[in-house]
Amino acid sequence: MPDLPATMRAVLLTGHGGPERLEYREDVPVPVPAPGEVLVRVTACGVNNTDVWVREGAYGTDDDPGEVSSWRRGQPLEFPLIQGADVVGRIAAVGENVDGGIIGKRVMVDFGIYNDAGTSLANVDYIGHGRNGGFAEYCAVPAENAHVVRMPLSDAELATFCCAYVTAERMLNRASLTGGEVVLISGASGGVGTGLIQLARVRGAVPIAVASAGWTDALLDLGAQAVVARESENLDQAIRSALGTRQVDVVADVVGGPLFKTLLNVLRPEGRYVTAGAIGGPVVELDLRTVYLKHLDLIGSTQGTREDFARVRDYATSGKIKPMLAGTYPLKDLARAQADFVEKNFIGKLVITMESTA
Amino acid sequence: MPDLPATMRAVLLTGHGGPERLEYREDVPVPVPAPGEVLVRVTACGVNNTDVWVREGAYGTDDDPGEVSSWRRGQPLEFPLIQGADVVGRIAAVGENVDGGIIGKRVMVDFGIYNDAGTSLANVDYIGHGRNGGFAEYCAVPAENAHVVRMPLSDAELATFCCAYVTAERMLNRASLTGGEVVLISGASGGVGTGLIQLARVRGAVPIAVASAGWTDALLDLGAQAVVARESENLDQAIRSALGTRQVDVVADVVGGPLFKTLLNVLRPEGRYVTAGAIGGPVVELDLRTVYLKHLDLIGSTQGTREDFARVRDYATSGKIKPMLAGTYPLKDLARAQADFVEKNFIGKLVITMESTA
Repeated sequence: MPDLPATMRAVLLTGHGGPERLEYREDVPVPVPAPGEVLVRVTACGVNNTDVWVREGAYGTDDDPGEVSSWRRGQPLEFPLIQGADVVGRIAAVGENVDGGIIGKRVMVDFGIYNDAGTSLANVDYIGHGRNGGFAEYCAVPAENAHVVRMPLSDAELATFCCAYVTAERMLNRASLTGGEVVLISGASGGVGTGLIQLARVRGAVPIAVASAGWTDALLDLGAQAVVARESENLDQAIRSALGTRQVDVVADVVGGPLFKTLLNVLRPEGRYVTAGAIGGPVVELDLRTVYLKHLDLIGSTQGTREDFARVRDYATSGKIKPMLAGTYPLKDLARAQADFVEKNFIGKLVITMESTA
Repeated sequence: MPDLPATMRAVLLTGHGGPERLEYREDVPVPVPAPGEVLVRVTACGVNNTDVWVREGAYGTDDDPGEVSSWRRGQPLEFPLIQGADVVGRIAAVGENVDGGIIGKRVMVDFGIYNDAGTSLANVDYIGHGRNGGFAEYCAVPAENAHVVRMPLSDAELATFCCAYVTAERMLNRASLTGGEVVLISGASGGVGTGLIQLARVRGAVPIAVASAGWTDALLDLGAQAVVARESENLDQAIRSALGTRQVDVVADVVGGPLFKTLLNVLRPEGRYVTAGAIGGPVVELDLRTVYLKHLDLIGSTQGTREDFARVRDYATSGKIKPMLAGTYPLKDLARAQADFVEKNFIGKLVITMESTA
């Protein structure tokens, strides 16, 4: 084993609540990789919605949408927890049964904690939730999750792809989006949203974005066929105008809330709606008649499979998708990064970097 | 052409509203089959929920769940209309380009008015809605919809299978229900519900029924693995008890309303929920987090394809499914049949028969 410090800097989540639950510490023990694991010296770790929702306990329960619960409903988290799903860094050590030749290599970590060797995502968990994540100088992960990558992107840029883009790729796979089809994307300026735009283009589909009007040019540059201002007085009509003679084959939604009804209204008969988040409000009114009269599929998706991760990694490595890095923050400013994240006055991703020791 | 009367008995729906909108007449012109059509002398025609909802205009619109609208939202019906989707009878005449050899044969009519030669059901319509149906002595239908059947069932028994069983078969296909899987069926004593039980068994799946306690024995006889009393104080728990170590792979729901939440609660992660009706209330509260955290598919289904109809016809012909005929009514008593239908104090189907001329 190389020389490793005994303690490290990390942000501990001490319980469900506000930002005061994020405790920056410099005396957290460096984890020891178990057999089959590797220890990553973290250099960058992206900020995600799920960090905030888990902190707030904002996932509700099956019985009570307002109840405090983590991402795995009914299974209380153990605190303190180190969050952070988008881990990029260098292999610093390996556990038993792992080839040490990987030490020193740059890795991008698949955040999925899988249950089986197949593609089922039932009861999966993720790094930064089911086990400690990357808002720390070191993070132990299963060796199979650490993907060695060589590419001319910075570590922070690389960290933009993990959770958001894998989530986006899974959404499009769950909705069976194919080349030539039109996908309407809500929350298009966010991490998942920009991922959906780029990943839709990779498969030859036509992305139409719904986002704040200020992001129009940036999203067109990114690949959106059209951008509909979220602030439009009649959003249904604005979307239909943007469509022209096209129909919406797939809706990829991370907003929900008041937008939900509009998204179903503009979806064509036999269309597919896929959701992986609901930052605009998770509890919506659904008219079951709309679902059956239009022969709709409403599809839930979260995380991704090993194959989704590998695909995103390859697209990133080959330059088919580009990083949307909106800003970096030092580890001790995680609470500020989350506050900025929630404000959404940026496009793409915010990333914590470890370069700063202050 | 054989001798045909100039006028016939029929029940005209004169507009959206209560039973007073059903007008029994004896002077309605007998329809003339157009090219490619056949004229059926109707002997039996089943009663369906959609007849009642269409009469009431109870389908809402995309924008307003409470608005009066027919089954094709936003496309007002033309009145008077002869309803009745489950047409069984004898071919009385044929239009141009149809072989007269079929005259006199018994037929079971596929109620689908299709848009294309494929399997898309977008913007389909149905006989008894998009054109006149079987609550009349004669009914003209496209020749391809009239399936000649020879089997030892009465015409009224045969009429039990059309709309309800084809709807049920499509639901199970939409949900990709396979052998060995568990399907939880709501409204199990109804036409679609009893169809779901029998058709689930045909494909080797395990149906668990939710129904009024009074139907328990009858539904077990029909093939339900277990019957959960709808009146159970804790329905979630009652369903879980009935399941034992099994999980619910698919929910097939025609009730919705207060039951909807329970049905999603007991559905396994990565399970499929399919709806084709919502007699318990069409507008429900949906927690999008439940949909994505559990990786659910919520699937809307209505009507069926040509293949679904042919399959149901073959199952009925070969005795794989049995008719659930709960009662017959003469044509002039259609309003009373509908009133009894809405009360649901029966299991299976109610059918209008033409034998009586009074």
